[in-house]
Amino acid sequence: MRGFHKLTAIDDAVNLVMIHCGRRDLGSEDVDIRDAWGRTLEEEIVSMVDVPPFDRSAVDGYAIKSEESFSASRSNPAVFRIRGLLEAGGAGGEVRRGEGYEVYTGAPIPEGADAVVMAEDCERRGEMLSVYRAVPKFANISARGEDIRAGETILKKGGCLRPWHIGVLASIGRRRARVRRRPVVGVFSTGDELVDVVNADKRGGANKIIDSTRPMIVGLLKELVCEVVDEGIVQDELGEISGRLTGLRDRVDLIVTIGGTSVGGRDLVPEVARSLVKSAIIFHGLAAKPGKPAGFGVLGETPFFMLPGYPVSALVGFEVLIVPLLCRWMGLEVPKRERVRAVMSRRVPTTPGIRHFLRVTLSRRKGVLIASPIALTGSGLLSSITKADGMVIIPENMEGVEGGDEVEVELLRGGFSGAR
Amino acid sequence: MRGFHKLTAIDDAVNLVMIHCGRRDLGSEDVDIRDAWGRTLEEEIVSMVDVPPFDRSAVDGYAIKSEESFSASRSNPAVFRIRGLLEAGGAGGEVRRGEGYEVYTGAPIPEGADAVVMAEDCERRGEMLSVYRAVPKFANISARGEDIRAGETILKKGGCLRPWHIGVLASIGRRRARVRRRPVVGVFSTGDELVDVVNADKRGGANKIIDSTRPMIVGLLKELVCEVVDEGIVQDELGEISGRLTGLRDRVDLIVTIGGTSVGGRDLVPEVARSLVKSAIIFHGLAAKPGKPAGFGVLGETPFFMLPGYPVSALVGFEVLIVPLLCRWMGLEVPKRERVRAVMSRRVPTTPGIRHFLRVTLSRRKGVLIASPIALTGSGLLSSITKADGMVIIPENMEGVEGGDEVEVELLRGGFSGAR
Repeated sequence: MRGFHKLTAIDDAVNLVMIHCGRRDLGSEDVDIRDAWGRTLEEEIVSMVDVPPFDRSAVDGYAIKSEESFSASRSNPAVFRIRGLLEAGGAGGEVRRGEGYEVYTGAPIPEGADAVVMAEDCERRGEMLSVYRAVPKFANISARGEDIRAGETILKKGGCLRPWHIGVLASIGRRRARVRRRPVVGVFSTGDELVDVVNADKRGGANKIIDSTRPMIVGLLKELVCEVVDEGIVQDELGEISGRLTGLRDRVDLIVTIGGTSVGGRDLVPEVARSLVKSAIIFHGLAAKPGKPAGFGVLGETPFFMLPGYPVSALVGFEVLIVPLLCRWMGLEVPKRERVRAVMSRRVPTTPGIRHFLRVTLSRRKGVLIASPIALTGSGLLSSITKADGMVIIPENMEGVEGGDEVEVELLRGGFSGAR
Repeated sequence: MRGFHKLTAIDDAVNLVMIHCGRRDLGSEDVDIRDAWGRTLEEEIVSMVDVPPFDRSAVDGYAIKSEESFSASRSNPAVFRIRGLLEAGGAGGEVRRGEGYEVYTGAPIPEGADAVVMAEDCERRGEMLSVYRAVPKFANISARGEDIRAGETILKKGGCLRPWHIGVLASIGRRRARVRRRPVVGVFSTGDELVDVVNADKRGGANKIIDSTRPMIVGLLKELVCEVVDEGIVQDELGEISGRLTGLRDRVDLIVTIGGTSVGGRDLVPEVARSLVKSAIIFHGLAAKPGKPAGFGVLGETPFFMLPGYPVSALVGFEVLIVPLLCRWMGLEVPKRERVRAVMSRRVPTTPGIRHFLRVTLSRRKGVLIASPIALTGSGLLSSITKADGMVIIPENMEGVEGGDEVEVELLRGGFSGAR
């Protein structure tokens, strides 16, 4: 039995991950714009058309030649003969001297007209319209190309498409857009003690545990809109693990193994990874608590992450190592949790050099928000997360926090922010 | 032609929406836990089992009777005969006086043993183990029920299921969970001037505009994980609109109409809504800029929202009226955008009594973040959103902001935070 010889600091670990795999080009794919929200645009969008494609009325009113209204006043109105009504989507018209058209919002401006006078600035009797004030040229006209001009770059490459970008793509007649491919992530658990929840009823032996970490990791990957290849539970056997790793290597962008990363006699994933051709473990053992048994390596060009089997350790490993890489690949900012400031209820000592992720509950005492650490023997227990309101992160350069210290709490209930 | 007689303040409008439709019970459905992330739990989850289901070793080490180590020291070690090795997932064993088992992390604690001594506190030679220090009872044992006890309530009704909740459901053997049904939202646009982007090539008349607002609204609804019934573009004709509204009424939880809400002659949606049985318009005309032509009504028990055809007006109407209702129904917090503080580049006058949503770009000048309003004639232009970095919201009780004023900017690029 061996311990981890060396723990890698989280910042160094992330740096190593980025050096080895940060520049991966996922490639792109064409998608229907209706399915493109949340995706990263992989082309520059230049409009081929003007939007709007013609001069439109921005209001309900009357289209006239503006110069004919310049001397108009309440005592000396300019008078126009109304030739008819133009509606949005309907036919256009033409205006000559002394003439006007009634226009509804969105209607094409008739030829010859260059302004729309609003209803409150005039009075209509039958065919005749009296305009009581001067209307400047282009008044109340939404001009051709006012929103978007033909030839204009409207969306740059690399941005996350939000619903209004979908709208702007539609407005120029684009039905499909080139977006970055989603990462495909292969996941499996190892451990002869595990059974899949699907087979939980049939769990023969009394010494089996239901695999809860893998459903959690799969959910976290799906939240990040990755495509997941869930390979289930792999037996604790060299050949099985080796076969699964090499089988996934060419089908996915990234592999996550769960369990088999501690240093007991049956922890075979690192052993297999070291034995394969063009395969290396870059680090194994993270200066994180929980999360210590996490590791990272490469299989050819495919990165693989070894997450501990304990769910909370796996969660920390996932969030500090895998999320930054996936976000880098996808061109997204790393999502941040909402934070609140609170006062520690009691002292919690920590080990310098190790980043601690403390689960806390929050309560209010005399108007002050109090963070109380969840006292559970096993730091890997899932209930320490489901019972917690938030997480307090104690950095490597501290020896703990004192009761009464003000700390920042990352809220667990609210979930992530970020481009989705 | 009529204007809006009365504009409803946004807070009053939201209040009216909630009074009429806030208590809607969406009902629930059973889903596979693997698809349950982001959903609202509609049952209380009580565990029927202990997790872990048996006493397990929390470390690699040796399982012994703790009392036999109590007098142990480096000079006077306690000696045990090791009967064999127990592995995670493997068979159990039994320990008698003077005996121990080697155990790996996760292995079942053999009967008779009540503590695990770690490798660094002992020395093994062949079958014999010398323990150099006293090991307290239960040391390094993850006890049956330590994470979750049979009979314990582990998840309360009404919470949003995050991936670690999926993990905890799996750990107690649950494969399905009862979650709140997703809202089904029916959407259509009205306007004879509109063509669907799918038919953009065939857009016969030169006076047609591609419908960009509906793809945006559909995207916004999908971001909120609603199910969308997209009914396309409906002709500006009383019978058509009436048929579509009544057809949707019994199939969806909420209807969104786009366009036909201004007060021109062809704006038929409010007219139709008023003419139907058990149908009423609760308000029409919102004290928002942009967003004024938004409205809300009920068709029997189905709420319907009239959004303006102009995309930015529709976006504001959607965010201030529809998002709070959908979130209330789903049991989610209303998502919030990330905010930054910035200094206004120039004065922008606003009308008291109306909430203004100003699109701004951000730049840094001598280290100070500057918010510059986007100057575009048509406030409904989509490009005012796609070019903007953020939105400054000027409340009803102000007459504008001055150049140099510090304001809060809601960032548009990052997207929403909130439970997803």
